[in-house]
Amino acid sequence: MLLSRSKVMEEVTGAQIIAEALKSQNVEYMFGIVGVPIIEVAMAAQVAGIKYVGMRNEQAVEACRLYSKFAARPGSLAMIPAVVEKAVRSSIYGRPGACYIDIPGDMVNGRVEQTSVRFPSCCPPPPVSLASSQEIAKASRVLREAQRPLLIIGKGAAYGRAEKGIRELVEVMGLPFLPTPMGKGVLPDDHPSCVSAARSRSLLQADVVVLLGARLNWMLHFGFPPRFSPHVKVIQVDLCAEELSNNVRATVALLGDVRAVVGQLLQSFRSDPWRYPSDSAWWVTLREKMASNAQISKRLALRTTLPMNYYTVFQHMAELLPRDCIIVSEGANTMDIGRTMLHNHYPRHRLDAGTFGTMGVGLGFAVAAAVLERSQQTGRRVVCVEGDSAFGFSGMEVETMCRYKLPVIIIIINNNGIYSGVGPETWREMEKMGELTTVAPPVTLLPEARYEQVMCAFGGRGYLVRTVEELRSALQQSLADIASPSILNVLIDPASDRKQQEFPWLTRSSL
Amino acid sequence: MLLSRSKVMEEVTGAQIIAEALKSQNVEYMFGIVGVPIIEVAMAAQVAGIKYVGMRNEQAVEACRLYSKFAARPGSLAMIPAVVEKAVRSSIYGRPGACYIDIPGDMVNGRVEQTSVRFPSCCPPPPVSLASSQEIAKASRVLREAQRPLLIIGKGAAYGRAEKGIRELVEVMGLPFLPTPMGKGVLPDDHPSCVSAARSRSLLQADVVVLLGARLNWMLHFGFPPRFSPHVKVIQVDLCAEELSNNVRATVALLGDVRAVVGQLLQSFRSDPWRYPSDSAWWVTLREKMASNAQISKRLALRTTLPMNYYTVFQHMAELLPRDCIIVSEGANTMDIGRTMLHNHYPRHRLDAGTFGTMGVGLGFAVAAAVLERSQQTGRRVVCVEGDSAFGFSGMEVETMCRYKLPVIIIIINNNGIYSGVGPETWREMEKMGELTTVAPPVTLLPEARYEQVMCAFGGRGYLVRTVEELRSALQQSLADIASPSILNVLIDPASDRKQQEFPWLTRSSL
Amino acid sequence: MLLSRSKVMEEVTGAQIIAEALKSQNVEYMFGIVGVPIIEVAMAAQVAGIKYVGMRNEQAVEACRLYSKFAARPGSLAMIPAVVEKAVRSSIYGRPGACYIDIPGDMVNGRVEQTSVRFPSCCPPPPVSLASSQEIAKASRVLREAQRPLLIIGKGAAYGRAEKGIRELVEVMGLPFLPTPMGKGVLPDDHPSCVSAARSRSLLQADVVVLLGARLNWMLHFGFPPRFSPHVKVIQVDLCAEELSNNVRATVALLGDVRAVVGQLLQSFRSDPWRYPSDSAWWVTLREKMASNAQISKRLALRTTLPMNYYTVFQHMAELLPRDCIIVSEGANTMDIGRTMLHNHYPRHRLDAGTFGTMGVGLGFAVAAAVLERSQQTGRRVVCVEGDSAFGFSGMEVETMCRYKLPVIIIIINNNGIYSGVGPETWREMEKMGELTTVAPPVTLLPEARYEQVMCAFGGRGYLVRTVEELRSALQQSLADIASPSILNVLIDPASDRKQQEFPWLTRSSL
Amino acid sequence: MLLSRSKVMEEVTGAQIIAEALKSQNVEYMFGIVGVPIIEVAMAAQVAGIKYVGMRNEQAVEACRLYSKFAARPGSLAMIPAVVEKAVRSSIYGRPGACYIDIPGDMVNGRVEQTSVRFPSCCPPPPVSLASSQEIAKASRVLREAQRPLLIIGKGAAYGRAEKGIRELVEVMGLPFLPTPMGKGVLPDDHPSCVSAARSRSLLQADVVVLLGARLNWMLHFGFPPRFSPHVKVIQVDLCAEELSNNVRATVALLGDVRAVVGQLLQSFRSDPWRYPSDSAWWVTLREKMASNAQISKRLALRTTLPMNYYTVFQHMAELLPRDCIIVSEGANTMDIGRTMLHNHYPRHRLDAGTFGTMGVGLGFAVAAAVLERSQQTGRRVVCVEGDSAFGFSGMEVETMCRYKLPVIIIIINNNGIYSGVGPETWREMEKMGELTTVAPPVTLLPEARYEQVMCAFGGRGYLVRTVEELRSALQQSLADIASPSILNVLIDPASDRKQQEFPWLTRSSL
Repeated sequence: MLLSRSKVMEEVTGAQIIAEALKSQNVEYMFGIVGVPIIEVAMAAQVAGIKYVGMRNEQAVEACRLYSKFAARPGSLAMIPAVVEKAVRSSIYGRPGACYIDIPGDMVNGRVEQTSVRFPSCCPPPPVSLASSQEIAKASRVLREAQRPLLIIGKGAAYGRAEKGIRELVEVMGLPFLPTPMGKGVLPDDHPSCVSAARSRSLLQADVVVLLGARLNWMLHFGFPPRFSPHVKVIQVDLCAEELSNNVRATVALLGDVRAVVGQLLQSFRSDPWRYPSDSAWWVTLREKMASNAQISKRLALRTTLPMNYYTVFQHMAELLPRDCIIVSEGANTMDIGRTMLHNHYPRHRLDAGTFGTMGVGLGFAVAAAVLERSQQTGRRVVCVEGDSAFGFSGMEVETMCRYKLPVIIIIINNNGIYSGVGPETWREMEKMGELTTVAPPVTLLPEARYEQVMCAFGGRGYLVRTVEELRSALQQSLADIASPSILNVLIDPASDRKQQEFPWLTRSSL
Repeated sequence: MLLSRSKVMEEVTGAQIIAEALKSQNVEYMFGIVGVPIIEVAMAAQVAGIKYVGMRNEQAVEACRLYSKFAARPGSLAMIPAVVEKAVRSSIYGRPGACYIDIPGDMVNGRVEQTSVRFPSCCPPPPVSLASSQEIAKASRVLREAQRPLLIIGKGAAYGRAEKGIRELVEVMGLPFLPTPMGKGVLPDDHPSCVSAARSRSLLQADVVVLLGARLNWMLHFGFPPRFSPHVKVIQVDLCAEELSNNVRATVALLGDVRAVVGQLLQSFRSDPWRYPSDSAWWVTLREKMASNAQISKRLALRTTLPMNYYTVFQHMAELLPRDCIIVSEGANTMDIGRTMLHNHYPRHRLDAGTFGTMGVGLGFAVAAAVLERSQQTGRRVVCVEGDSAFGFSGMEVETMCRYKLPVIIIIINNNGIYSGVGPETWREMEKMGELTTVAPPVTLLPEARYEQVMCAFGGRGYLVRTVEELRSALQQSLADIASPSILNVLIDPASDRKQQEFPWLTRSSL
Repeated sequence: MLLSRSKVMEEVTGAQIIAEALKSQNVEYMFGIVGVPIIEVAMAAQVAGIKYVGMRNEQAVEACRLYSKFAARPGSLAMIPAVVEKAVRSSIYGRPGACYIDIPGDMVNGRVEQTSVRFPSCCPPPPVSLASSQEIAKASRVLREAQRPLLIIGKGAAYGRAEKGIRELVEVMGLPFLPTPMGKGVLPDDHPSCVSAARSRSLLQADVVVLLGARLNWMLHFGFPPRFSPHVKVIQVDLCAEELSNNVRATVALLGDVRAVVGQLLQSFRSDPWRYPSDSAWWVTLREKMASNAQISKRLALRTTLPMNYYTVFQHMAELLPRDCIIVSEGANTMDIGRTMLHNHYPRHRLDAGTFGTMGVGLGFAVAAAVLERSQQTGRRVVCVEGDSAFGFSGMEVETMCRYKLPVIIIIINNNGIYSGVGPETWREMEKMGELTTVAPPVTLLPEARYEQVMCAFGGRGYLVRTVEELRSALQQSLADIASPSILNVLIDPASDRKQQEFPWLTRSSL
Repeated sequence: MLLSRSKVMEEVTGAQIIAEALKSQNVEYMFGIVGVPIIEVAMAAQVAGIKYVGMRNEQAVEACRLYSKFAARPGSLAMIPAVVEKAVRSSIYGRPGACYIDIPGDMVNGRVEQTSVRFPSCCPPPPVSLASSQEIAKASRVLREAQRPLLIIGKGAAYGRAEKGIRELVEVMGLPFLPTPMGKGVLPDDHPSCVSAARSRSLLQADVVVLLGARLNWMLHFGFPPRFSPHVKVIQVDLCAEELSNNVRATVALLGDVRAVVGQLLQSFRSDPWRYPSDSAWWVTLREKMASNAQISKRLALRTTLPMNYYTVFQHMAELLPRDCIIVSEGANTMDIGRTMLHNHYPRHRLDAGTFGTMGVGLGFAVAAAVLERSQQTGRRVVCVEGDSAFGFSGMEVETMCRYKLPVIIIIINNNGIYSGVGPETWREMEKMGELTTVAPPVTLLPEARYEQVMCAFGGRGYLVRTVEELRSALQQSLADIASPSILNVLIDPASDRKQQEFPWLTRSSL
C-alpha cells in the first residue's frame, strides 16, 4: 500500500500581503478610489480589519512620488512588508512626511507561499533627541537679554506635542507669542499673550525671535527685512538639522525634539528664575497695536450692510463654533482672513492648505478628520471653511460625506470668484458685452452659484446664507445635527477684501 | 544749448510674451485655473485675442511633464516664443501629443525690452509622407490573396482625416471593417460593412488584418492569441516608424500618412481592379454572427423590467441622439457598452478616456468641444456619457458649463457604484450591519445619488430618470434647449452588467 | 513496486534569457565591464555566440536612461525578450538612437521554466517612406529658380545610405555641397563640388539650402543670421516629422527616408532635365573663396617652424592616411580643424564626438569600429585623432586595444592643455611663482606629457613626434603593423590655433 | 554750465558670483574639468582665492543630481549665493552628503549689478543634539546585562569625531569592538580590544550590539540571521532619525550626535561604575578565534612561492607603511582583503569605495587627500591601494598627480583580471584557441600589464614588483620621495583568492 502525504502550500496574494503589512504597522484606515487592481487591495484591507473609505477624486497617481519623503518599489512580493515598514517608519520619524510605495498590478495579483513572507513588528514611536547644554545656556542668556522677545509657534511644536512646556514658557516667563497657521491652537488664540492681532509689528520690532518648530519660509517672509529687523537674533528649535540657520543665521541653534528642548529651556529658567516684565515698553506697544487692530476688525465685523463682508461672517462663526472643533480651511482671502478671525483653542485642531497653498485638499482632510473623530467618539465637530473656488477642486467629496454620514459642516465663503468676483448684475452686463470667454475677467465664477444644493443632491443639508441671521440659524442647525453633513453657502460682497495691510508686499502670506 | 533725446524703451512682461507667442501660433483658446501668477497670463491672453475658459479642477501640476511629447523650460524671456513654437509644432507634427512648457513665476512677471523678442511665424500644417511603392505592391498582393480580410480603423485614421479613401476601400473593394474606440465614425458605425457586432469573431478568424492608424495595444489584445489567429498577416499603416511591427511582426509595413497611404493602396487597386466577394464564406459567417449578437442586444434592450439595464438605456439614447452629435465618454461598463451601442456617424465626433482609461477627463473634453462648436456655429451638440463614479472626478465642471452657457448634455448611467453598486434597500441593510467603512464593499457609492441636482445648483437642467419614458422625455427636452447644460441622472439596475462575452480574458478591453 | 516518473522542467536564468533575446535580434557584439551580476550576462552571451568585448571605463550607470530613445524595465523574466525586441527595433526604426533596458540583479539570477519564454523573431529592416509628389514638385521648382543653391549633407544622409542618389544630384545637376561633421564622406571631401573650404561664405550667401538629413542645430548656427541670409529658402529632407521647420521655417518640407526622397527628386529632374550652370557667378565666387582659403591653409601647413602647428600635422596625416580608413575624433581645436583638413572619402567612415561634443567617447568608438572591421576582414584601419585633454577621459582603453590586438592608430595632438596650454619653460616659471593650484591657468595640463608610453605599457607601439619627419615615419610604421595598436604623441605649439575666422561668434561650431 | 555726473554701475558675472559665494562659505578647493563655460568659473575661483585642481575624468554630468542630498537651480543670478549657502550647509548638517547646483551656461556668463547681490555669511558648524536621559538609562541597563556585548564603530562615529569617548568606552568598560570599513581607525585596528580578526563569530554570537554611527546595510548583512543571532539586542546611536530601527528593530534607539551620545553613556557609567569582565567566556572565545584566524593569515602571508598572494603583499605593506598614512582603496578582493590586513591607526585616515562599491573613485579621492595634506603640511602620505580593474576606470588621473607633484603612492594589486584573471601562458593558449572575444572569460584582462609605466609617462616613478624584496624596496623608495607620485605594479598569482570563509553567502560584503 502506498501512503502519500501531500504538502499543502498556503499561498497568499500581493493584495493580502499589502493589507497584512499595513495592519502589522497599526494602520487603521485606508482611503482610496478603487479600480483594477486597487479593488483587491481594498477588499483585503477590510478583511484584515482596516477600515476602507472610498473617495471620489484623486490627483496624479505617480506625481506624488516627487513630493514624497520616501519612495520605493518592492523587488518581490516577499519584500512588501519590509518596504511598508520603512515607509510607515519614515513617515513618522524625523520630520514627518508622506511616503510612496509603487506596486505594479502584476504584483498585487501575484501569489507566493505564505511561509516565505515575514512581517516586521510595528515600528516603535519616534526617537527623541535633546539640544546640547551649552546651546541651551546660550539661548537662556540671549533671551534674558532680549528687549523685545517673541516666540513663534510652528507646526513642529504641534506635531511634537510641546503645548504643555510652551504654555509654561509663555505664562511663567511672560513672553508674547505668535502662532503660524498650523501652529494655531498649541496655545489658545485668545490667550492674553497671543499677539496675532499685532502680527506685523511684532515681527518687525522683535529683537529676539524664538522659532519653536516654525520655519522662516515665505509665510514668515523668509525672516527678511523689511518684515523683520535686519538685526533680529534668532533662537531656533527644530528636529531637522538641515532646517537650522535656513534663510536667516540662527544665533542659537537648538537641534532636537521641540517638546524635549522646551523642557530643557524651562529647566534652565527654573534653576535661575527669570520673568520678562509685563509692563515693558514692548508689551505696551504690542497691546496698543492689538487693541487698535481689534478695533478695526470689530468695526468691519459689525457692519450691517449686505452683502456681508468677510469679517462679519467670521465674527459670527467664531461666536458659535464649539471651542474644540476641528477647523479645516483652504482658499485665498478665505483662508488668510479666517486664520485671523477663527480662533483655535487646542493643538492639532486645524488643517489648512499649508506651505504650498495646494487647493483641493480641504474636503479630503475633512473626511479623514471626521472619520477619525467618530471612530474615537470624541464628539468633536469638523468645520471646513472653503473659498468658492477652492470648493470646486474636489466638491464631489460631499457625496463621500453623505455616504458615510460624516457630520462635516462646510462653510463656503462665496464671493463669486477667485480673489474676487462680480455680482449678478455686473455679470449680466458682461454677458451683453460679448462672448464671456473674451470679456469675463479670468477670476470670475458664476455669481451666486448654489453650492449648497450640491450637498442636498446627496441627502445632506444645504443652506443659502445672505444675512447674519441666516448665518447664525444655519450654523446652529448644522451643529445640532450629528448625523448629516451640511453646506452653508455664504454669499458675501464680491468686492469684500482684507483690511488695509501695512505691507502690500506678499500679502498672501499674512500669517 | 543742450539737446537731450530720451530713448524710450518699450518693455514687455513674460506674461505678454507668452500670450503673443501663443497667438502667433494661431492658438485660439486657453483653458486654465487662475492663481498667482497664472492670472497675469490669462489676462494677457485675453488682451491678445485668445479666448480664456476658466476651469474648476486641475490635475498634477508637474506630473503632466512625464507624459508629454515635448517638455522644455525657456532659458530667458526672449526664448519663450521659440519654445512655444516648438511645443505647438511638436504637438501636431508626427504622432500628435501634449507638450509641456515650464515657465517659472519670476519669468512671468519679468520684463524685457520689446525689440529683443522675435516671434516665429505660425508653423505650417504637418508634412505628409507616403509608403514605398514596393510595399504598396506587396500590400495589394497580400490583400488580394486574403481569405478572411479585416480592416481595423484606428485613431490615426481619424487624426489623419483618411475617411474618404477608407470609405472607397470598404465600398469599392468590399472589405469588412472594425473601428477602435477612437476610430469610430471614420466610417459610420451603422455602415453595412461594419462588423463591430461580430468583433471577437472577426478578430479571431481574420487571416489578413489591415491596421489603419490602429495600434495592437491592450485594447486590441496586443494582437496575440487566443484573440487573434497565430497565423494572421498584418498590413500596418502608421506614420510612426517605431510603431510598425510592435507586438506583432507586420507582414507589410506601410510607413506614412494614413490618408496618403490609403490613396496609394486605392491607386494600386484602380490600376488593377479587384473586389473581395460579398458572398464569401467570411462575409457569411460575419453576417450570421452580427445578426445573432444584434438579436441578443436587442432582447436586452427591449426588457421592460425596472430598474433599466445598460442596453435599454443606450438603445433609446441611440434612437434620439442627432447623428452629428459629439459623444464624450468615460467610465467602466458605461464606456465599454456605450461604445457598442452608441453609434458614431462622422469622424472625429468621439472623445473617450482613451488608451489609459484615465478617469476625470470627460467633462473637460466636453467643455472644450462645446466651446469650439459654439464658436464655429456648427449647431452640433455635445453629449457626455458618464459612469457615476467617473462623474465624481471632476463633477464641479458643470459650474463651468453653466457659467459659459454651454449646452452640454451629461447622461450619467448611475449604478450606484464602480463596476457595480447596490440598491437602497441593500444599503440600508448594510448600515444596520455595522460601520460602513468595514462592511460596505469598496465598489459601492451612495445609492440613487441625485447627481442631476448638482447641475440645478448652477442653473442648468436636471432630470432624474428611472423609466424609458422619462429617459426619452428628458433627452428630448435637453436637446431642445440650446442655451443650458443638463444632466440626466439615469438610475439603472446596480446589478446590470455586460452581456456574456466569449473571452472572459481582458474583458475591460472590449473594443 | 512503485514507478515514479519525474517530470524534468528545464529552467533558464535571466542571464540566459537576456543573451538569447539579444542573439535572436541578431546582436553580434556585447561591450561591457563585468561585475556582479553582469558577469553572468557576459558569459551567457558568449555561450549564445555573441562576442564579448571587456572595456575599462564606464559612465553613469543610470544616467544614460535620460538620453535614451526608449527605456524600459521588464516586469518579469518572461517579458525580457519582448522588451529586448522593442529596444532593438526602436534603436533602428525612425531616427536611430540608444535604448536602455533596466534589469534588476534579482532578475538576472532568477529562474523560470524554459517553455514559458517566447522569443520574437528578429525585427525586419526599418520601413521606408516617401515625400508627397506635390512637395517634390515644389522642391524641384524652388531649386530650378535658385540663384545660389547649396546642398548640406548631414548624418541622416549617411545613416540613410543615400550616397548614390546624392552623387547624382551633385554631378548631374551640378550643385555645390557642404557636409556636416557626420555627413562627411557621403560624397568624398575632395570632390570638386565640395565647398567645405568656403564654408562660411557658402552658408551666408546661399539663397536656397537643401538639408539632406542635416539639422539646423548649433553646429549649423541654427540657420540664423548673421551666418545665414535672413531670406534663405530651405528645402528640408528628414525622416523625422518633428524636425521639419525646426528653428527655420522650411519652404519645402520633404518628410521621408533620405535615400528614397533623393530618388524622388532625381526622378523629377530626369523627367524634366535641368542642370545648374557651372559657370554661374555663385560657382565663381565659391571657387575663388575656396582657392584663397586653401592657400591660407597651405601656407600654415607648409610652415617648418617647430613646434609644429595643427595645419602642418593634419596636412601630412592627410597625405599618408589610406582613403578608406575610419576616422574617429574628439577634442576642441583638434576635432574642429581636423574636420577641415582630414578628408573622408567614403560614407559612414567617420565617428566624432557629435552634437553634444561629449568627451571620452573616442576610444570606445575606435574599439568598436576595430572589432567590427577585423571581424568583417575589410582591411580598413581605424585612426583615432584625439586632443590631449580628450584622451584623458578614457585613455585606459588602450589596454583593451592591446588585449584584443586591435590595430587602432591613436594620434594625440598634444598642445599641453585644453583649448591651449603652455610649454615646459613657461610651466617651470609658473612653478616658481607659487602653488600651481593657484597660479596655473585652469586650461593647462602637464607639458609634453608622454602619452605614447601609456600604449607601450600594454605592449603597443608608442611614438613621440616633434617633427614632420618623425610624424611621417611613425605613421607609416603604424600603418604597416596590422597586429598592434599605436599612439603617436604629436607635440605641437601650445599656442597653435585655428586660422582667423570671419565670424568670431560660436567659433566652436565651425562645421 | 552743465554738470553731469555719471553713475557707474559695477557689474559682476555669474561666474564671479559663484566664486564669491563659494569663497564666502569658506570653500578652499575646486576640482573640475574645464570646458565652455566652466573655464570662466574656474578662473573666477582662482581670482577669489580658491585653489583650482584640474582633473582628467568626470562622470555623468547630470546623473549625480539623482544621488544628491540637495539639488537646486537658482532662479536668477542674485539667488546664486543663497543657493550655494544652502548647498554647503546641507552638505554638512545632519547626515553629510553631496549637493548639486545646476547653473545654466547663460547664467554663468550673465551680468548683474554688483549691489543687487547679497552674500550670506559662512554657515556655522553643524548643530549637536543629545539622546534622552531615559533612553541613555535603558542603554546602560541593557549593556550591563549583556553576556556577549559588541560595539560596532561606523562611518558616523568617524564623521562625528567621537574617537575620544569611544576609546574610553572600550578601555574603561572593557568592551570588544569591530569597525566597519569607513569606521576603521576611530580606534586603532591593532587595539587589543579590536575583534576584526574574529568578525564573523563576533557578529553571530553577540547578544547585545551597540551601533555607533554604523548602519545595518548589506555590509553588515542587514543584521539578519544567519550572520546575526535572531535574538540580538541592538543599541543604536545615530543622528538620523529615519535610520533608527532600520532593518532590525532597535532595543534602544539613541537619536543624537554620536560624540555627544557616547559622552552621555560614559556619564552614566561614571556615576555608577561598571566594567565588562575581561575573563568572560565571550572574551575567551573571541581571543581564541582571533588567534586561530591570525594564524591562518600569517601562514598565507609567509608563503614564499611566486607569484605572490594577497596576504603576503599586504603583510609587507603593513610593515612598511607609516602609521599615519591615508589609505585609499577600491577593487574587489583587493579592497576586501586589504581591509583586514592593512590597519588604520587614526580616525578619518581611510577612504574607500564605500557603501555602493563604486569603481573609479579612488584616484580622485587620493588627489583630493594629497592636495589637502600638502596644503596643511601634515607630512602624511596618501597610499592608494587599487585592484587592476579598478585602476582602469580613472587611471589617467596619474597625470594630475604628476602635474601637481602630489606624492601619492599607488599600489596596484594586479591579478590580470576582475575577481581573478589568467597568467601569460594560459593567455597565449587562449589566443591560439580562437578569437578572444569568444574564448576569453569576461573577467580577464591583459596579463602582466605594465601599469607602472603609465606613471612613468608623466614623470612619476614606476616599479614592477614580482617579489617580496622588490615590493619592500619599491615601497621604501616611494616613501622616501616626497615630491613625486609612484605606482607599484604588484603582480600576484591570478588564482590568488581570499582565505576560506565561514559564510559563502555575501562574501563580497565581508567587512
